[in-house]
Amino acid sequence: MSKPSDTENIAAHVARSFAAQSMMRTLDATLQQAKGGRSEITAPIGPGVRQQAGYGHAGLTFSIGDCAAGYAALSLLQADEEVLTTEMKINLVAPAKGDYLCAQGRVEKAGRRLMVVTARVAAVTGDEETLVALLQGTMLPLRP
Amino acid sequence: MSKPSDTENIAAHVARSFAAQSMMRTLDATLQQAKGGRSEITAPIGPGVRQQAGYGHAGLTFSIGDCAAGYAALSLLQADEEVLTTEMKINLVAPAKGDYLCAQGRVEKAGRRLMVVTARVAAVTGDEETLVALLQGTMLPLRP
Amino acid sequence: MSKPSDTENIAAHVARSFAAQSMMRTLDATLQQAKGGRSEITAPIGPGVRQQAGYGHAGLTFSIGDCAAGYAALSLLQADEEVLTTEMKINLVAPAKGDYLCAQGRVEKAGRRLMVVTARVAAVTGDEETLVALLQGTMLPLRP
Amino acid sequence: MSKPSDTENIAAHVARSFAAQSMMRTLDATLQQAKGGRSEITAPIGPGVRQQAGYGHAGLTFSIGDCAAGYAALSLLQADEEVLTTEMKINLVAPAKGDYLCAQGRVEKAGRRLMVVTARVAAVTGDEETLVALLQGTMLPLRP
Repeated sequence: MSKPSDTENIAAHVARSFAAQSMMRTLDATLQQAKGGRSEITAPIGPGVRQQAGYGHAGLTFSIGDCAAGYAALSLLQADEEVLTTEMKINLVAPAKGDYLCAQGRVEKAGRRLMVVTARVAAVTGDEETLVALLQGTMLPLRP
Repeated sequence: MSKPSDTENIAAHVARSFAAQSMMRTLDATLQQAKGGRSEITAPIGPGVRQQAGYGHAGLTFSIGDCAAGYAALSLLQADEEVLTTEMKINLVAPAKGDYLCAQGRVEKAGRRLMVVTARVAAVTGDEETLVALLQGTMLPLRP
Repeated sequence: MSKPSDTENIAAHVARSFAAQSMMRTLDATLQQAKGGRSEITAPIGPGVRQQAGYGHAGLTFSIGDCAAGYAALSLLQADEEVLTTEMKINLVAPAKGDYLCAQGRVEKAGRRLMVVTARVAAVTGDEETLVALLQGTMLPLRP
Repeated sequence: MSKPSDTENIAAHVARSFAAQSMMRTLDATLQQAKGGRSEITAPIGPGVRQQAGYGHAGLTFSIGDCAAGYAALSLLQADEEVLTTEMKINLVAPAKGDYLCAQGRVEKAGRRLMVVTARVAAVTGDEETLVALLQGTMLPLRP
């Protein structure tokens, strides 16, 4: 019987970790991909995640942007490792107006102690994408 | 009949704005206070807002920290003005472990074009409070 | 007699503004380029700009990264406009070790009220470049 | 012969580290104090550290704010430990206009792996102080 490859192990680990985040279910978010230091998460701009003017809440944008950055980092680690966000900065550049948000995370520097990550979040309506936010932060790898 | 004071107008405006944020209802958050450049928001660390290890999600901490900072700012404005977060930075210093989170927002500098704000978020269990996060960011006042 | 083009006016304005920054002379920094929302600034990692371990000081890295971001923004404005940094975040990812630093600034979103900018700073030795820092921040355009 | 106390060792270590930063000499900065998780650094707003409008450069404000935060952190560590800034965010709230800048650093959370720090920088003219900037960031303790 063949041993699952590292790649399979990591993919399963990432999927399991995402599924364990009840916040992602509350936000109806989907992990589209997480591999090789990149990841993508989408979430509808639904009726329960709005700010006072009816656009998507900054908390929604932050949540999926931060998660996309985190799973980009996790995709580079071993299957028994975890990551924690230690800090994250978000610049909001346009209202979150559209059908759903799409966050793309990316590892900029995978240090041994700390991983520096970025994410870009776009609002999508049909074929049209509008940049909504940029994030830049730090993930702390936790080794067993 | 007396005209409602500015203070009453602003308090009503703040309450109405908070009530219009469906995200705050989704997170079961309560605006405890917003007055004179300070505000306080609480939210339970309930079953639907967790990260993969079972603690409160960074997205929850961010959401109420950012909102507390925003309503601190709004409490200094006129009843027909709004604020938008333009950028926010969060440092997460401990896991969000406890019964609920309490975010205290504060205006550090009320400029004409931009307001610089901070917030501190603590996790509370019974009488015990643990600092969970510090936020520092910018609110953009929108005048009609 | 032809009127100087907008492009010439802006280039002259950028050069004049950079020359007026005595801090850039103190750091021996050079504006290599600023055009179309991009800019590049270099500065030697000389004997007077070190931190305690002998590498380039974070203050040097920040100074030229922030300036590169600022001139990227200024390159999109009219010749009588100015920009101010309102906030800037820097993640330092490696020691500033090499002959000189090269900061590349970029406008990510040119809003009417605020411009969101990023910069990347690399340490250069001969042909080799090492990423030293990432910056993300906000410039405030000042119109006369 | 008595062994120097830890307090003396740490004070000497902090002073030695500051003296080894040539950037601080270039900026004519003085470490006024560093003890118990707090520190203070001052620097004149001299002719060589200006931005294009004649005020103190954001790079000066950042440099002494970041250093004040770093020495606040170092004051809590053992004499053979070091700290590195991993990330720092600065909000600039007023022009750096006055005789000198005074930066006060403070440790907000002294974790084992990471220390979260803040600093406030004021411009001082005679008896008058104006808040110029707020910083919030992370120091990485390096143990031998």
